[in-house]
Amino acid sequence: MFVAMNRFQVRRGHEAEFEHVWKSRDSHLKEVPGFLTFHLLRGPEYEGYTLYTSYTQWRSREAFEAWTRSEAFRKAHANAGEHKHIYLDSPQFESFEVVQEIS
Amino acid sequence: MFVAMNRFQVRRGHEAEFEHVWKSRDSHLKEVPGFLTFHLLRGPEYEGYTLYTSYTQWRSREAFEAWTRSEAFRKAHANAGEHKHIYLDSPQFESFEVVQEIS
Repeated sequence: MFVAMNRFQVRRGHEAEFEHVWKSRDSHLKEVPGFLTFHLLRGPEYEGYTLYTSYTQWRSREAFEAWTRSEAFRKAHANAGEHKHIYLDSPQFESFEVVQEIS
Repeated sequence: MFVAMNRFQVRRGHEAEFEHVWKSRDSHLKEVPGFLTFHLLRGPEYEGYTLYTSYTQWRSREAFEAWTRSEAFRKAHANAGEHKHIYLDSPQFESFEVVQEIS
């Protein structure tokens, strides 16, 4: 199993706007082959920003990479540039392999 | 829903040892009230270390905090000091509230 995470530094005072952008977007993720679950997470408040993290589980790295090359991905990210003022810095992308699971 | 994450900087060459410590530990997490799921994630390789992240979902922040005060928590972390040479730096703890979920 594969996990893609993005860490977002959202400027203080723009948290509601950031959450609205995500909640109002029709990502069609559920229909993407290999997609498992997505969480948007609100984290700690640091100097000047609130940390948010997106956490997406995929059946495999290959499924994730196929999605990044798809039309669905392009559409979901088409308007990303409109909201640049929300962020203190660029998102930080990190990917992971699941080595242990307890549930 | 609440998520607790820890980021670990594991010295290069100690990855197998780090994973063994986690896999061989009897955490009894499944029996803890409010526990949902746990993932241990192997991430990118940086200069001098491999990033690992633990990702634990709880029904609420209160359930997580009750666990940190429990005997089960104390037992699970009793031997943490034995493995200090594995790490380049202290683990970085961050907690999150789930603001959106797709699954």
